[in-house]
Amino acid sequence: MSLYEKHRALLEAAHEACRSRACWSPYPEMPAKYPDAEAAAARGKAAFEAHLAAGRFLLDQPGTQTEIGEEVSPYTQAPLGILYPQADIDTLFIAGEQAMKGWAEAGIEARIGTLMEALDTLYRDHLFEIVHAVMHTAGQSYNMAYAGSGVNALDRGIEALVHAEQAMRSVTPSARWERRFGASQIRLQKTYRLVPRGVAVCFACASFPTWNAWPSMLASLATGNAVIVKPHPASVLPMAITVRVFRQVLAQAGFNPDLVTMALDSTAAQLGKALIKHPRCAIVDFTGSTRFGHWVEANAHPALVFTETAGCNTVVLQGADDLDAALRALATTMCMFSAQMCTSPQNIYLPPQIDTPQGPVPRAEVAKRLAAAVARLIEEPRRAAMILATIQSPQTLALIGQLRDEGAARGRVLLDSRAYPHPEFAQARTATPLMLEVTPAARDLYAQEQFGPVSFVIACESAEDALAQATRDVRERGGLTAFLYATDEAFIARAEAAYARAGAQLTTNLTGAMPLNFAAAYSDYHVTGLNPAGNATLTSLAFVASRFAVAQSRRPLPENADA
Amino acid sequence: MSLYEKHRALLEAAHEACRSRACWSPYPEMPAKYPDAEAAAARGKAAFEAHLAAGRFLLDQPGTQTEIGEEVSPYTQAPLGILYPQADIDTLFIAGEQAMKGWAEAGIEARIGTLMEALDTLYRDHLFEIVHAVMHTAGQSYNMAYAGSGVNALDRGIEALVHAEQAMRSVTPSARWERRFGASQIRLQKTYRLVPRGVAVCFACASFPTWNAWPSMLASLATGNAVIVKPHPASVLPMAITVRVFRQVLAQAGFNPDLVTMALDSTAAQLGKALIKHPRCAIVDFTGSTRFGHWVEANAHPALVFTETAGCNTVVLQGADDLDAALRALATTMCMFSAQMCTSPQNIYLPPQIDTPQGPVPRAEVAKRLAAAVARLIEEPRRAAMILATIQSPQTLALIGQLRDEGAARGRVLLDSRAYPHPEFAQARTATPLMLEVTPAARDLYAQEQFGPVSFVIACESAEDALAQATRDVRERGGLTAFLYATDEAFIARAEAAYARAGAQLTTNLTGAMPLNFAAAYSDYHVTGLNPAGNATLTSLAFVASRFAVAQSRRPLPENADA
Repeated sequence: MSLYEKHRALLEAAHEACRSRACWSPYPEMPAKYPDAEAAAARGKAAFEAHLAAGRFLLDQPGTQTEIGEEVSPYTQAPLGILYPQADIDTLFIAGEQAMKGWAEAGIEARIGTLMEALDTLYRDHLFEIVHAVMHTAGQSYNMAYAGSGVNALDRGIEALVHAEQAMRSVTPSARWERRFGASQIRLQKTYRLVPRGVAVCFACASFPTWNAWPSMLASLATGNAVIVKPHPASVLPMAITVRVFRQVLAQAGFNPDLVTMALDSTAAQLGKALIKHPRCAIVDFTGSTRFGHWVEANAHPALVFTETAGCNTVVLQGADDLDAALRALATTMCMFSAQMCTSPQNIYLPPQIDTPQGPVPRAEVAKRLAAAVARLIEEPRRAAMILATIQSPQTLALIGQLRDEGAARGRVLLDSRAYPHPEFAQARTATPLMLEVTPAARDLYAQEQFGPVSFVIACESAEDALAQATRDVRERGGLTAFLYATDEAFIARAEAAYARAGAQLTTNLTGAMPLNFAAAYSDYHVTGLNPAGNATLTSLAFVASRFAVAQSRRPLPENADA
Repeated sequence: MSLYEKHRALLEAAHEACRSRACWSPYPEMPAKYPDAEAAAARGKAAFEAHLAAGRFLLDQPGTQTEIGEEVSPYTQAPLGILYPQADIDTLFIAGEQAMKGWAEAGIEARIGTLMEALDTLYRDHLFEIVHAVMHTAGQSYNMAYAGSGVNALDRGIEALVHAEQAMRSVTPSARWERRFGASQIRLQKTYRLVPRGVAVCFACASFPTWNAWPSMLASLATGNAVIVKPHPASVLPMAITVRVFRQVLAQAGFNPDLVTMALDSTAAQLGKALIKHPRCAIVDFTGSTRFGHWVEANAHPALVFTETAGCNTVVLQGADDLDAALRALATTMCMFSAQMCTSPQNIYLPPQIDTPQGPVPRAEVAKRLAAAVARLIEEPRRAAMILATIQSPQTLALIGQLRDEGAARGRVLLDSRAYPHPEFAQARTATPLMLEVTPAARDLYAQEQFGPVSFVIACESAEDALAQATRDVRERGGLTAFLYATDEAFIARAEAAYARAGAQLTTNLTGAMPLNFAAAYSDYHVTGLNPAGNATLTSLAFVASRFAVAQSRRPLPENADA
């Protein structure tokens, strides 16, 4: 049975989920529901600890020149001490191009079957190993590393395969074409080949490496390209495990493993620009900082470029049927992984008063109750650890300090940030949320992503003004998600239209246990391309359709009747 | 009945044609088969002559500042004397953005129905008017203007609508999504809006304005965008008629006609860069010169960019079952519209001898017989007029002169170029083909598009060398079409693979009355994006899928069970 046949039923279910966009996943959503969970979790932890003990990560890819590694665990603030091979990038590009030959010719089903097998291998044999690798590089909580960086990221990968298959299947492999030209009846046999673009470079970010990188890798690979993975030097291990698994599965399936390699750099000697400007670079997938992301977008040509950078995710409050429930939901989402997600809300635009069934509530009280809801959530260290987890980068602590000072000078500190004691890791790098109260005069502070647990409550003239300010900030400075609480249906309709034009995905009046910024594969689109926060929509046809070309050849059928 | 219903049967047939890629068109392929052809042709000619008599082309678009016009008929070498309104470009962008609102919200069927009606109106009421407009600007023959710039271009437009519909229909308009989070059962209603990118700018070229511009316009319009058409100053009339028809049909269907406007410039004061760098420019479709095209590709960001520029279209001869038939087919295609098509062959790579059933034929003899076949075709002025038509630009005559000198100095003139007397237009700008015999030492001459009736016969070491040289030139310098005559099946297989990687569409061993470079809508892909000749594939999903974004909104269903 081919690998495609092996995974066909699951793939068909994924196709149907992408059509209906109803809730679906082949994976259990909680670590405890994983098959034989306890043993698997223990094996995964042991595998992670074996990496630490070995101190070297073996990767049999070509071009290795030296070994480097600079990861530090946000939980222990100690170096992981793992060295990874650093390869010559020319060698990786040439090896990738060589490897593409058999891969492109193998056809849609051979490629997709092999890639489904790679995802399945990650799930069956490496999920908990990746959970620990993500915890000790990105700094996520155990549960988030399992869900957000584990099964949800696998789902995003399958979703990319579904769309790649859809785009490729829209091209018939061959046709018979017949027409009269003057006295000749011309009969042609036409062959349509799907030709990959070339070697793709996939940049993974430090705080959420797999969720964006896996679908990008799969979109490029499914359409016949090779991929050089470029992890952030702070979060190498999750991607190194990924690269090794893909190489093993490719080789087992009879393909050249150099279809997937890893290019490593260090904070001191960065390779990003050299990779992007390399003459053999055909596709760039970039997740990371806005500053470098904008350079990538402007300079990647002639390579195709897909980006997810950042912006300011906005919240508008006009009214709420249950204000406490709304503020609780908002507070939880603001705290999730210390707001180190590209979907975390940052800017809360408040009119002078918020409508509730109990009458209008003044802005100052709403702000105070929101701050109180945040404070309550993280009061207890065990709960704080589950929600806030750790701070990935020491730079984020510096940023919090700087914004506390600027916020105090230009507005008011609504809730101050402090380290909280992590119950399991005494040395963990932690910070509770900093909330600042400002006016639109401080737009230079908030109309950009301030990465980390920082939020701004912004005083607006009215609900309409709040909506106008928020959507303008998204349009001009970028934004991926947006959140609205409103009781006025006409206002909701205006907000939906305004946010659609601005290109942020809007969640309205949601309360309860679902994080407001939860984005479900097969159902929620992520990134629109309509504002500066990036164009890498997970997953639309646009994310996959230009990763391959159609080259045709045609020749007369034997019975062609010449004039 | 809606316009979509009116055109549904035709659209469904077009969808099926794009699936099967078999031969299909709703239009008769010969002018004589047009309904009530004689009367329609007379009305079209009269409409064209009325433009000349009026001396002004009225277009009720906003922002008109002055009137300009510099068209000269290649048939009479006299100015057409038509003035067109020149509008302020800021006004056009703002008007386009305003007009998009109702258009984007109208939905897929309303847009596609209206656009089908516009194509139908062009066909029913303006086809022969456009034929004469194309003749007296681009310089095409009557038959080519009818087919290539008329019905085939309409077909390319419908094909773009098919793919736009396919890409848009892959996004469900709404979904119901339900999942348990802890104690909450979350039920969400999700809405997925298709959001256009913004105002597109569509550049049309001088020698073949409609064939590329119509599908580009339709791809942008179908996905909800507005389009500013920027014709080449030498070929305004065909696009001015197009713009006026679209505006009329849009207005009749209740939409804002400013969805389609025209930006005009002059040779002396060009507006291309200002249009592309305009902050409201969201999409650029460019057909034109390689030099400006490469600037467009590198500088259009943040606008999306689709280009068709040029390259060197290559021919490789290894062998032929009927060498005379092959040379006749090649000669005809080299002569078609004086090789002023982006698909015209230019470089003929010959090994020392060509295999035939009668034994090997030396290169010198093959070159001589090819030149003789060309000379024979155009001997008789009436036949020359039908095939060669005229030379669009006086610059092409200068280029022929320059290449004749360079070719003679560095190789040999195989067939000289001369003006031929056009039987109907004594003043027509004409030139018969110039054929030069060179070696790869003259690569700087031939490894680029030399626009016009110029070809190079290139002496190669072997058939393998010919294939290697040809595909390298395509890969490095661009190429859209390629032509092969070979008797060795293994060689054909290698050539198909090599040209697929190089990204040129290959036609093998075709003889008979079909022009070798004929590209059929619904069946032949045009432009691959794999080499420097451009990325605007007519029509793949990649040509349409990124012209719109998906913006979603989600909110709890009434029965949502909060925790």
